Amino acid sequence: MSAEKIPSMSDIKRAHQRISPYILNTPVMTSHSVDDITGAEIFFKCENFQKIGAFKMRGATNVIMSQRPEDRTNGFATHSSGNHAQAVALASKLAGSKAYIVMPKNAPEVKKKAVAGYGAEIIFCEPNEKAREETCDRVVSETGATFVHPFDNYGIIAGQATAAKEFIEDQPNLDVMMTPVGGGGLGAGSALAVNYLSPSTDMILAEPENANDAWESFNKGELIPVKNPDTIADGLKTSVGVRNFEIIKQHVKEIYTVTEEEIVDAMRMIWERMKIIIEPSCAVPVAAVLKHKSVFASKKVGIIITGGNVDLGNLPFK
Amino acid sequence: MSAEKIPSMSDIKRAHQRISPYILNTPVMTSHSVDDITGAEIFFKCENFQKIGAFKMRGATNVIMSQRPEDRTNGFATHSSGNHAQAVALASKLAGSKAYIVMPKNAPEVKKKAVAGYGAEIIFCEPNEKAREETCDRVVSETGATFVHPFDNYGIIAGQATAAKEFIEDQPNLDVMMTPVGGGGLGAGSALAVNYLSPSTDMILAEPENANDAWESFNKGELIPVKNPDTIADGLKTSVGVRNFEIIKQHVKEIYTVTEEEIVDAMRMIWERMKIIIEPSCAVPVAAVLKHKSVFASKKVGIIITGGNVDLGNLPFK
Repeated sequence: MSAEKIPSMSDIKRAHQRISPYILNTPVMTSHSVDDITGAEIFFKCENFQKIGAFKMRGATNVIMSQRPEDRTNGFATHSSGNHAQAVALASKLAGSKAYIVMPKNAPEVKKKAVAGYGAEIIFCEPNEKAREETCDRVVSETGATFVHPFDNYGIIAGQATAAKEFIEDQPNLDVMMTPVGGGGLGAGSALAVNYLSPSTDMILAEPENANDAWESFNKGELIPVKNPDTIADGLKTSVGVRNFEIIKQHVKEIYTVTEEEIVDAMRMIWERMKIIIEPSCAVPVAAVLKHKSVFASKKVGIIITGGNVDLGNLPFK
Repeated sequence: MSAEKIPSMSDIKRAHQRISPYILNTPVMTSHSVDDITGAEIFFKCENFQKIGAFKMRGATNVIMSQRPEDRTNGFATHSSGNHAQAVALASKLAGSKAYIVMPKNAPEVKKKAVAGYGAEIIFCEPNEKAREETCDRVVSETGATFVHPFDNYGIIAGQATAAKEFIEDQPNLDVMMTPVGGGGLGAGSALAVNYLSPSTDMILAEPENANDAWESFNKGELIPVKNPDTIADGLKTSVGVRNFEIIKQHVKEIYTVTEEEIVDAMRMIWERMKIIIEPSCAVPVAAVLKHKSVFASKKVGIIITGGNVDLGNLPFK
């Protein structure tokens, strides 16, 4: 696959073949009581049950496994304290390569342990964007490792697209497909999969009001970086990527935003009614369905549950 | 089915046929990381995804649906603030009957709401065993409702046995089947199903040390009521029933007990590794596997996850 071409249908199919030995085809769950509450018929693709507990395993595995063996010898590097860090760590291990993960020194202990548990080398830096990028650049130049961007990369986008591909294969008649949007790896990948495999399905994204750069960019037609994002949906604080935005502009029908309170309420509803653990980010599309009931009434809505990695000692429930 | 005969294989099969339209055949989940931690190969039958969020739906539905229509007209009554209350409420509604649920007046708001949500009439009483029984007796004599005991009833035992029956049908080569034991509806039912359908499987129960009456009774060979039970596993505080104990004595190989700390640790492991919400009671067999690793090493162990109804505002994690 060319590094600089929007993934085609065959790119996504090849990505799926490539990563299938290393990922799970996660189940689709439904809940009568959630349907009663929302008035829609919702199908949940449970990537919280994916390896490393999140969809990020798909994209990282696709990028890493698509390198020729001779290009894997210097390993892979990224800067992240979230699910992408664990994904790069585990996919590198499975590829027989080394992973270098740059993390802010104040990252939660549980995240450090998870990454170290996959055999990755952690390089700590000051907790700001500039230090992260500079440290990662230094690691790449010192080690010759290949940098794996968390979202603004067509290999990542093709990998993340495989979740929606499996979802459509399981549940072919969706009226709407929804994901949250942060950097836009999953959003853009899902939009492509829907466009190729289920063009009559509307692709809709959801974003926290407190990190609404994708919504703003989408409505103004130009990329506007996020300003001071402050949301419990910590996976969605990043600005949408350049490649991601091009795809989203073309294939997404609508972006909805929701408040922090709406996110926590939707998250609690899913925990209580479905007995599954979802991250705040996953609750963002659910909150959008609850907020705009008339838009989704009686529709078959597919929502990708992005991950289940939460700090149980620090939950937002009272 | 005779009301006073230990359920036969055909009683359990008939119970399963009877309740199938009203319950879910819940999925069996596995987790590589839980297997790595325990050293066993564990299969989890996820009754936390059952209607009303717990296996109790099976027994209550069996008892209520096995009444002739003319015997359903006065409704059904029970005293419970737990999952059995919700089960009787929902099963009565599905049977077109009225449910009368006696609850202590200090029961959590969320439990009152769940029961009322199924259309049941709640009768409040003082928060002690005597008041509960007296109030329930009064309700039964005033309304002519049929009392549905939560566990010491062969129809309940046959209904709960259907979880293990489905489990064995899904996963036929288990070395061990485990459930927690409180009143013993699930424990006795599972022991019967294992005895009939998979006699080479060892039936093992697990109980909190702080409510160890089943363990004590099992080892002394006579029924000893629980004394001052004080455990986070609130579903397991009751004394084991007479009918339940007879079956357990005959068909159970071993009962293990675990501490409160072991329960919380096992519960947290399941939440973190499997991303599913389980009640403390479900964690009791998991804790027993962690405590006795050599007993379970490399064995195929089936554990019935009994329910997922927890108060999210009051979790035991730090």
